[in-house]
Amino acid sequence: MESVIRVNLEQMSYDIAIAPGSLEKLGELITPLQLGQKVLIVSNPEIFHHYGQRVITSVEKTGFEVACCTLPAGEPHKTLETLQKVYDLALEHRLERSATMIALGGGIVGDMTGFAASTWLRGINVVQVPTTLLAMVDASIGGKTGVNHPQGKNLIGAFHQPRKVIIDPLVLKTLPEREFRAGMAEVIKYGVIWDGELFTHLEQAQRLDQMQFIEPSLLQEILQRSCQSKAEVVSKDEKELGLRAILNYGHTIGHAVESLTGYTTVLHGEAVGIGMVAASRIAVKLGLWGEDCDRRQLALIEKAGLPTKLPTGLNIDDILTSLLTDKKVKNKKVRFILPTEIGVVTITDQVSSEVIREVLQGMF
Amino acid sequence: MESVIRVNLEQMSYDIAIAPGSLEKLGELITPLQLGQKVLIVSNPEIFHHYGQRVITSVEKTGFEVACCTLPAGEPHKTLETLQKVYDLALEHRLERSATMIALGGGIVGDMTGFAASTWLRGINVVQVPTTLLAMVDASIGGKTGVNHPQGKNLIGAFHQPRKVIIDPLVLKTLPEREFRAGMAEVIKYGVIWDGELFTHLEQAQRLDQMQFIEPSLLQEILQRSCQSKAEVVSKDEKELGLRAILNYGHTIGHAVESLTGYTTVLHGEAVGIGMVAASRIAVKLGLWGEDCDRRQLALIEKAGLPTKLPTGLNIDDILTSLLTDKKVKNKKVRFILPTEIGVVTITDQVSSEVIREVLQGMF
Ligand SMILES: NC(=O)c1ccc[n+]([C@@H]2O[C@H](COP(=O)([O-])OP(=O)(O)OC[C@H]3O[C@@H](n4cnc5c(N)ncnc54)[C@H](O)[C@@H]3O)[C@@H](O)[C@H]2O)c1
Ligand SMILES: NC(=O)c1ccc[n+]([C@@H]2O[C@H](COP(=O)([O-])OP(=O)(O)OC[C@H]3O[C@@H](n4cnc5c(N)ncnc54)[C@H](O)[C@@H]3O)[C@@H](O)[C@H]2O)c1
Ligand SMILES: [Zn+2]
Ligand SMILES: [Zn+2]
Repeated sequence: MESVIRVNLEQMSYDIAIAPGSLEKLGELITPLQLGQKVLIVSNPEIFHHYGQRVITSVEKTGFEVACCTLPAGEPHKTLETLQKVYDLALEHRLERSATMIALGGGIVGDMTGFAASTWLRGINVVQVPTTLLAMVDASIGGKTGVNHPQGKNLIGAFHQPRKVIIDPLVLKTLPEREFRAGMAEVIKYGVIWDGELFTHLEQAQRLDQMQFIEPSLLQEILQRSCQSKAEVVSKDEKELGLRAILNYGHTIGHAVESLTGYTTVLHGEAVGIGMVAASRIAVKLGLWGEDCDRRQLALIEKAGLPTKLPTGLNIDDILTSLLTDKKVKNKKVRFILPTEIGVVTITDQVSSEVIREVLQGMF
Repeated sequence: MESVIRVNLEQMSYDIAIAPGSLEKLGELITPLQLGQKVLIVSNPEIFHHYGQRVITSVEKTGFEVACCTLPAGEPHKTLETLQKVYDLALEHRLERSATMIALGGGIVGDMTGFAASTWLRGINVVQVPTTLLAMVDASIGGKTGVNHPQGKNLIGAFHQPRKVIIDPLVLKTLPEREFRAGMAEVIKYGVIWDGELFTHLEQAQRLDQMQFIEPSLLQEILQRSCQSKAEVVSKDEKELGLRAILNYGHTIGHAVESLTGYTTVLHGEAVGIGMVAASRIAVKLGLWGEDCDRRQLALIEKAGLPTKLPTGLNIDDILTSLLTDKKVKNKKVRFILPTEIGVVTITDQVSSEVIREVLQGMF
């Protein structure tokens, strides 16, 4: 079982390789890229504990000179300050321009390592080895990298495409179940915005809430179709000038929910699930799509074990204010991605505060 | 007296506008770029004191919403930590993706502002308004941006092209003379590596060591030809994959001198001057160019009032070691840019330590 997906970006093109057991073959998989000899593996203590040695062994076996760096886990550590540790090791290990950083971890490790690689000597190679479902289907692909500003997520960053993305679905076995479900929200997102067949296949699955209840072949298909969706969108709009905005489906209200809950009680994927529920309802109210589609999406989100209600205690006025301070806001108009049929969305900044308010009120 | 030079980089192309008095016209000059409304002027206290108000007035007059940020002067402050101040103001002033940072200062302000603009929201506009001779003819053009690592210069950075470079030669009146001479080293560099006519025109000048002794028309020509040289080289090799390396003429040994003297006693341009003297002598020893050319270059460097000897106290073994730790070192071979005739250089990594040592020994 093996899939290779191409992300087409001219000279920056790269492959996403998905195969159980690929962690052990990491060295062989990156050898054709003609990288320099030095590699810096960046991870966090938990992930490194599970998979670090396997990666080191594989990469050293193929002749690379390896150093490692673990960063503290958690969103509060996704900062310029934490990056300093990566830079220090890059210096100590004398990474040259041909050197490579390997991001072994979830989206946090991936974003930080990508940004460090983008800025070390004005850009060295990075290979993404995502270990969360969310990072596999989303964060590791497309070259968005960055860290947080104390007052806002991902405000500081760069576009820096990886040389390769290597996905080993087996690492999901140790991923906390809640994180798995959170990643599933992004999978459902691709079903709604891009790949209607993925959506129906998800509908046919018995369960979606735990890795152990999902057939390996279905998991492979989920990964493959999700990565394919992201790859296609990114290939058509590398720098997020237009189309790529559709990837933010569910993220408009999702981001507000995350930000108002301090990025701690609600996971990103959970917030996206809630945001998709809201966007779908807004679409119904605007007559963009039907109640039936709305119900089908809701059922899928519930099957994935994700919350579909707003966290108690949230204030609707605060959500509306937060929507206006999002960095994607242009000319003070909030932009929504709204579904029109399963697999198709549209972008609009013509949603009135009244409609948003009404929808949110129905979501407690 | 007005020159406009185009830097050709496809969609990233931009103009360098050189004209006395352009500081007062800054607002008009950037209006055609269709920038967003918000502008953040980044400078340092000294430069801002001289020119800040003029820039603010001009930019506000044309309808921009302006905020300002001054960073502490000096190489030790060219760090990620100092950048935090720019990011804080970017957040406070709510800079959106269409916003613009204006770098009003020398290479330090330019490099930091460029890097901040490159990484804020993964890239916003930057306009370079260089106020030192060095920044005018070199640092402001070509999109190299960055900050220092505590243990190495410019190790953290990005390529980020400005939307425009605006040069007002009149600001050089307040520039310390020593800084002016340091910038002249880079001017002479262009004469040696690219523009032989510039070299002969410099030879014809009465003096080159102080702004006040240089005819405005010659100064305009110096700026124009230097910028043109840099623009041509950069246009041919944006990401420093090949040709652009020739801009490092004099910088190989120059960087070693800077690094060993702690970046405090010797200015960058002074170190480059010393490095050019050394490179020229190496070229003579290798039979690449003649004693006469070597003498002509030396005379020019002396006329610019620049040092041509190594600082006392430097140890030659330390210089050799330092050469090997430069970030441009590939496969442990030091790469030299060596002149073959006035206006032409070649790149080689075939210079033996013995030759380097011999040349350096003759430079105390
Ligand atoms: N760059 C992008 O395009 C993009 C897209 C979406 C999200 N993101 C970013 O990704 C981040 C979220 O990423 P995430 O959801 O992967 O969270 P994460 O990186 O914080 O990982 C979640 C948790 O799971 C643990 N973990 C990861 N893999 C594991 C494994 N295989 N076994 C056991 N434990 C494991 C981690 O240690 C962590 O505690 C956010 O910072 C977000 O901004 C980036
Ligand atoms: N990006 C590039 O391609 C590039 C190229 C060369 C150098 N650089 C960088 O540029 C930096 C050096 O720049 P620099 O030589 O311009 O030094 P600088 O920026 O430190 O300025 C020199 C001094 O002159 C003062 N000053 C500047 N303009 C003035 C004016 N008009 N009137 C009065 N005082 C003024 C400054 O306050 C400062 O004290 C280094 O950090 C170097 O790495 C970058
Ligand atoms: Zn997301
Ligand atoms: Zn220089």
